[in-house]
Amino acid sequence: MDEVMADPIAKFIDLYNRDCALALTLEALHGKEVHEAVPPEHSSKVWEYINAEGFFRDLQVIPGSQEVIKALTHSYEVFIVSAGMEFRNSLIDKFDWLQDHFPFIGWQNYVLCGDKSIIGADIMIDDRAKNLRTFSGERKLLFTSTHNVHLTEFERVNSWQEVAAKLL
Amino acid sequence: MDEVMADPIAKFIDLYNRDCALALTLEALHGKEVHEAVPPEHSSKVWEYINAEGFFRDLQVIPGSQEVIKALTHSYEVFIVSAGMEFRNSLIDKFDWLQDHFPFIGWQNYVLCGDKSIIGADIMIDDRAKNLRTFSGERKLLFTSTHNVHLTEFERVNSWQEVAAKLL
Repeated sequence: MDEVMADPIAKFIDLYNRDCALALTLEALHGKEVHEAVPPEHSSKVWEYINAEGFFRDLQVIPGSQEVIKALTHSYEVFIVSAGMEFRNSLIDKFDWLQDHFPFIGWQNYVLCGDKSIIGADIMIDDRAKNLRTFSGERKLLFTSTHNVHLTEFERVNSWQEVAAKLL
Repeated sequence: MDEVMADPIAKFIDLYNRDCALALTLEALHGKEVHEAVPPEHSSKVWEYINAEGFFRDLQVIPGSQEVIKALTHSYEVFIVSAGMEFRNSLIDKFDWLQDHFPFIGWQNYVLCGDKSIIGADIMIDDRAKNLRTFSGERKLLFTSTHNVHLTEFERVNSWQEVAAKLL
């Protein structure tokens, strides 16, 4: 979900720049996790934001995800798998966000988990190399996000248009 | 989770008997779903209870589940998979309940989903035949609950002691 369908990075930047004297930019995040891009004394802010109720409720939708995922549902059985279990308060926010923005996918096909190695599927689209490494399916697509730009280990998709070109 | 680790049936009976003139017993549930065991005019009560915030928060622990699951974690990688997605308000209740009663299993190994066919594992212990039918793993154990007592399709376990005898 995050950094593939929903955009927590834009919200981090907004909140951080509202609260901290030093401005954070998307460029500063190139090749880094958010907590690596801010001064050490501010890294606790990242955890404070992400653990707050409502953080995941109003994230912007990643461009193209709605249209392409809707098209994928006509040819594939699509499950939305999010490793949201790390953040207790994200669970209901993620449920409600999916209901709002992806109403064509039923709750039957939502999965909120911790470790994605339990998922049995054929294709995984994910921004996290750790999830693709433990995936036993036949095809692994790394969805580009700021933190993974330097990885060369997986077949990469830079946008939902590229996902469509490969899978539709 | 439900009817395997946590006991929603006992809570249904308590709430129903508190609110409705007709008393519900465990015997009346033999071979039935709860909504089948109450008069038609009361079946909406079942959905009202289960959808309420907090319903899943204080369920009793099924006897033996803590001890046997703890022992299983020494020989197996144990995931707790609950089809709780049908009930939005259950998500945080289930998370908190697991933290309280199964602290030896980390959130990394929690899965809240809708359709369990997405789960890739070797062994599944479940009270629902529909989950075992779509499971691709090598061993399927039907955990006895009131609603499934007449099924003969799967290898059955009547208690956590029987799970221990088979898997430990």
